[in-house]
Amino acid sequence: MPVTVAVDAMGGDHGPSVTLAAALTFLERTPDARVIAVGQEAPLREALARLRSGAKDRLVVHVASEVIAMDEPPALALRTKKDSSMRVAINLVRDGAAQACVSAGNTGALMAISRFVLKMLPGVDRPAIAGVLPTKKGVTTVLDLGANVNCTPAQLVQFAVMGVALASAVDGIERPTVGLLNIGEEDIKGNDMVKETSELLKVSGLNFHGNVEGTDIFKGTTDVVVCDGFVGNVALKTSEGLAQMLYEFLRAEFTRNPLTRVAALVAYPVLQAFKRRIDPRRHNGATLLGLKGIVVKSHGSADKLAFEHALYRAHAEVANGVLDKITQRMAAVPVPAARAGTGAAGA
Amino acid sequence: MPVTVAVDAMGGDHGPSVTLAAALTFLERTPDARVIAVGQEAPLREALARLRSGAKDRLVVHVASEVIAMDEPPALALRTKKDSSMRVAINLVRDGAAQACVSAGNTGALMAISRFVLKMLPGVDRPAIAGVLPTKKGVTTVLDLGANVNCTPAQLVQFAVMGVALASAVDGIERPTVGLLNIGEEDIKGNDMVKETSELLKVSGLNFHGNVEGTDIFKGTTDVVVCDGFVGNVALKTSEGLAQMLYEFLRAEFTRNPLTRVAALVAYPVLQAFKRRIDPRRHNGATLLGLKGIVVKSHGSADKLAFEHALYRAHAEVANGVLDKITQRMAAVPVPAARAGTGAAGA
Repeated sequence: MPVTVAVDAMGGDHGPSVTLAAALTFLERTPDARVIAVGQEAPLREALARLRSGAKDRLVVHVASEVIAMDEPPALALRTKKDSSMRVAINLVRDGAAQACVSAGNTGALMAISRFVLKMLPGVDRPAIAGVLPTKKGVTTVLDLGANVNCTPAQLVQFAVMGVALASAVDGIERPTVGLLNIGEEDIKGNDMVKETSELLKVSGLNFHGNVEGTDIFKGTTDVVVCDGFVGNVALKTSEGLAQMLYEFLRAEFTRNPLTRVAALVAYPVLQAFKRRIDPRRHNGATLLGLKGIVVKSHGSADKLAFEHALYRAHAEVANGVLDKITQRMAAVPVPAARAGTGAAGA
Repeated sequence: MPVTVAVDAMGGDHGPSVTLAAALTFLERTPDARVIAVGQEAPLREALARLRSGAKDRLVVHVASEVIAMDEPPALALRTKKDSSMRVAINLVRDGAAQACVSAGNTGALMAISRFVLKMLPGVDRPAIAGVLPTKKGVTTVLDLGANVNCTPAQLVQFAVMGVALASAVDGIERPTVGLLNIGEEDIKGNDMVKETSELLKVSGLNFHGNVEGTDIFKGTTDVVVCDGFVGNVALKTSEGLAQMLYEFLRAEFTRNPLTRVAALVAYPVLQAFKRRIDPRRHNGATLLGLKGIVVKSHGSADKLAFEHALYRAHAEVANGVLDKITQRMAAVPVPAARAGTGAAGA
């Protein structure tokens, strides 16, 4: 069955020139995929005219008159921009015309509109942002990366269930292990919220490994790492900053003088292989989990390669039936406390 | 005036063989320093006998009969181990025999005993762990790195004041900028605690830059970054894990085959320079700020070079009068809310 992805072609820092170029390469490499590119007609047609591809017959343009700005207040965007490229793309998922939506636009607006239009899956209070990070052993799914700054233990258990469903569906892991992100100082084993979450996870029936520390994320100690959105966002952004700094230091050392420049030439293929291996663009595409539809958020500054990867991500989630698997697991796992928390936690 | 450092010679994963070797090198390179090495007599004498140094005359052994294990509950260590190397080293600071104490031992015990023996400076509720991290521009002082998992806004303001005092005293920055660690998602600008802290920092008289994101730590956007201990610890440990992973990936690429091994040989001096530049051992030594005495915590797994740097850190803080500067700033900065919070936040 073909997979149709609705693309918010106007979203992100670069707009159609990047989103459409990425969409066409994605289509060339994914024969069973189709793309509905949503956005303003003129810029889309112009960008398309400039691109050459044998896959244009699997891309259709769907016109939407408005654009949500990157810094627009999400509540305002939700209330007023009913014909925005983002909203129309999400509508297409709700109506079954597409099985997933990908946007590099305003994260807050994407969260708010997705939640309003698609609604939550049974048993899930709020969406979580799940990302897949490279590790020494392979990859680790980390959530929440910034959607929820105040989480209840019940919500963290829901995140764990959804993360496990995602990792098992897309990465093909039978019983993904779950780690609860905590701190490792000897006197303190986390705050009350984390302690309570740990108790709930122990009786959740999930393959709960126990507490993990920040170091464990990139060690790949567990398949899934669960944390609240504040902590997850800081961990992610700190990692981005560190990787960037190390990359610049490495570059600086190799361009220090003529001798190091020769060394750089000799080492070039190796450094390229290293760079490719850790290229964050290949891990672009965070999933808004818990919605009745697949919504993938690309980094706003994504270039063509990065946006392409967000599209592969969306395709893989559809092809592997992630939504059904989350629904099944939410029903199967005994998360009474999570259920009980549904009302109060919706704030 | 000579600076005397009390060294918990038994602390850490390696004990006297590392702590004493580091102490002697530190003494050789720091002519105005003296060391009181605290610990069990036999292992200390044995380790010393094996070491050669021209600085042995500035190191005296102070016998303490007990040792606190790395995994010992802090409360138990505080109550029962009154003649432990750690406790006796801290006592020496209280009694004025030493101006600073350095330990690679049990962090929780070090916190609990330091607080009990030395007491807090006026206006400070609880100690914070401050670390100095390398950035693109130089260094950034980050606190709290794990001492306090539940912080009030008033406490975060205290951390900011102390961090500023530290950065200005040791790094010689006149009016250090302060960033409040927050998340960058567009819909949410942090939780209530962070928002309230931001309001307090705006009227604190400090050079408050505003919110910063995780990426800003290694960018060096501000001289001081303030956060609660849970978030700070996760950010630090995640960075450690990422750096470790990247290092291993780089190594793997350079040892992949005979050709890449040749490239590694050519690039060796450059890679060494890079490694030295980011070597975490050169940033070892986190300070327990807010106590009536200087206490520096070394990483438990510190080797000789790393422990040496914790000693330089302690020496620099004494030499630059950090304690006086914190006291002055706590008195000078209008932090009414912080004062008001003193009682309730002591839990």
